[in-house]
Amino acid sequence: MDHARRQQDLRVTLRRHRLDGLLITHLPNIRYLSGFTGSSAALVITESKSVFFTDGRYAAQAQTEVQGAKVVTSRKAPILTAAEWLAKNRSRLGRFRIKIGIEGDHLSVAARTRLLKTLSSKFLLREAQPVIERARMIKDSEEIELIRRAVRLAASLFDRILESIRPGARETEVAAELEYAARKAGAEEMSFPTIIASGERSSLPHGRASQAVIPPQAFVVCDFGVILAGYCSDTTRTVYVGKPTAEARKLYQAARNAQQAAIEAVRPGVSAGEVDQAARKLLRREGLSKYFAHSTGHGVGLEIHEAPRLAAGQGEILRPGMVITIEPGIYIPGKWGVRIEDMVVVTERGCEVLTAPSKELIAV
Amino acid sequence: MDHARRQQDLRVTLRRHRLDGLLITHLPNIRYLSGFTGSSAALVITESKSVFFTDGRYAAQAQTEVQGAKVVTSRKAPILTAAEWLAKNRSRLGRFRIKIGIEGDHLSVAARTRLLKTLSSKFLLREAQPVIERARMIKDSEEIELIRRAVRLAASLFDRILESIRPGARETEVAAELEYAARKAGAEEMSFPTIIASGERSSLPHGRASQAVIPPQAFVVCDFGVILAGYCSDTTRTVYVGKPTAEARKLYQAARNAQQAAIEAVRPGVSAGEVDQAARKLLRREGLSKYFAHSTGHGVGLEIHEAPRLAAGQGEILRPGMVITIEPGIYIPGKWGVRIEDMVVVTERGCEVLTAPSKELIAV
Repeated sequence: MDHARRQQDLRVTLRRHRLDGLLITHLPNIRYLSGFTGSSAALVITESKSVFFTDGRYAAQAQTEVQGAKVVTSRKAPILTAAEWLAKNRSRLGRFRIKIGIEGDHLSVAARTRLLKTLSSKFLLREAQPVIERARMIKDSEEIELIRRAVRLAASLFDRILESIRPGARETEVAAELEYAARKAGAEEMSFPTIIASGERSSLPHGRASQAVIPPQAFVVCDFGVILAGYCSDTTRTVYVGKPTAEARKLYQAARNAQQAAIEAVRPGVSAGEVDQAARKLLRREGLSKYFAHSTGHGVGLEIHEAPRLAAGQGEILRPGMVITIEPGIYIPGKWGVRIEDMVVVTERGCEVLTAPSKELIAV
Repeated sequence: MDHARRQQDLRVTLRRHRLDGLLITHLPNIRYLSGFTGSSAALVITESKSVFFTDGRYAAQAQTEVQGAKVVTSRKAPILTAAEWLAKNRSRLGRFRIKIGIEGDHLSVAARTRLLKTLSSKFLLREAQPVIERARMIKDSEEIELIRRAVRLAASLFDRILESIRPGARETEVAAELEYAARKAGAEEMSFPTIIASGERSSLPHGRASQAVIPPQAFVVCDFGVILAGYCSDTTRTVYVGKPTAEARKLYQAARNAQQAAIEAVRPGVSAGEVDQAARKLLRREGLSKYFAHSTGHGVGLEIHEAPRLAAGQGEILRPGMVITIEPGIYIPGKWGVRIEDMVVVTERGCEVLTAPSKELIAV
């Protein structure tokens, strides 16, 4: 990863936004720009300097990991150390009031109040646009390769799921087998709490594995992902326990058709909202669109949910290098639900589906 | 859990702080007050009303879980739905400008900006004191029982760790075995990323399990916890692989003595800072206090880190029902480290250690 280059690119953006500096507090953004993987840090990027702040626990780790920035360690919270550094270097940062961009979505109201106490009135804090998130939307080839590995690792776990799903097993047992296999295969951690939602619970879009026992005839929604080298994967497959009824097959096919339509809509130049509409249009035809209450997908990278968002009205234009999920679902309250989710990377002419396991309805 | 009672107690606090309402955005606080376990919610408590807001994904779950509050579901972000509710009910909330407390540490600058756009100038937003966190410090008997169960579950996993720690094993393999056993035993999830730090890595206070191979002669710091029924546990044991040298035994004993001294200092009426000093004093005598760079402990409950903080200068007075960790450590950079951590509950006369496994130096 060329972290120094990413910092340089950001400086161009700073000039365009007329900021004298950016105070970065969102850890995935700090990792993207500096390589630091720990959980306590702040980063200041100015026209001429990159300075990284952490606390004593991460002194050694920061020296090893941080690229392209001076490392400052202190006993205080990194953001306060950063504020003190800014105050001390004020005269070097500009002649007039110094405009520092802050990450409004990743700085608490309380932290802003504390910042203002440390900085003199010579500083102005401005909620910056999510400029780093926008840069992160487009993955370079090294990042795509890391994501590919994370997706591949997750795919290799799918057989383990099929072995452990059976009537009478608890959802948490299935999750336990899956997460154990993930760890054994080298996953750093799961990218979000594993969803194993069986029977009626499959109608909950976010049915985290519970103590519920898998019924003899049921859909089981399995939504899981791993983190490998910092990058996330996100996959959903829905299987059927027992012999699928005609009604179950029909519901599954509707979800699959909607998912396929959305995948086919993905190419450079279309908007995120158009991809969402492609899935919704298919479901509307079947009278099922009211049972699809979430968005069609989201970007994935250092975070499990990142830009762009594939939802109604989202104007973000897809570009090569974006990595997104395509995951329409149908949820009939109190009855059952189906979701199918792949990760795809936008290519020059369309997209490549990264997720391998079959999308045929599997009966276990 | 008597959620309605907790809301009533909060109303007394609101009156004392002269607030017309509190907008609660910190999920553990929302869970504490309402019982909701999902990941998207806001809660408004006024003199006469409790209103809970979530989005469509959690409609069914909120109806089942939320106690003592009216449930409002919308497609928008819960905090915006809450703002709209406040704006609509302005005239019922007070005659003058309505003062709404916000959780400064748990509301982003961007969310505050969006709130202000929705609320008219008839509203004032005030950073409220962490009044719910203060209430949560004192656990009731039901909560202590749940914490006891989480600690007991974690203790039962310690034998599994001892079986899997051996020279040549990767730290992640040990973590995998541990987390698998935790899931099988019914843990909802780990309460934080498992730390398995062997050899030189034991000198990192936050050495998350890595691909590093456990050396033939080494300390291995094992710091882990589980979540059960929403409540966290947090335990550290340091074991030795191979035959401990006299130097290793001496270091271990120093950490153990410091930990014991801190435990003996815990009783109602002493300050959090005094407990921290008790551990530091023992290490100072051995010339080791400079190698102890973090605080002695922290509260544990619905969150893995909550109030009080047991650090230098912390004036918070310990009271019966507080559940805290006692976890001094010694970290010699580039060489090795030891940490020993128990959870204790403050009782009427001292404290009860909840963590069972032996603190003798175990050689594996």
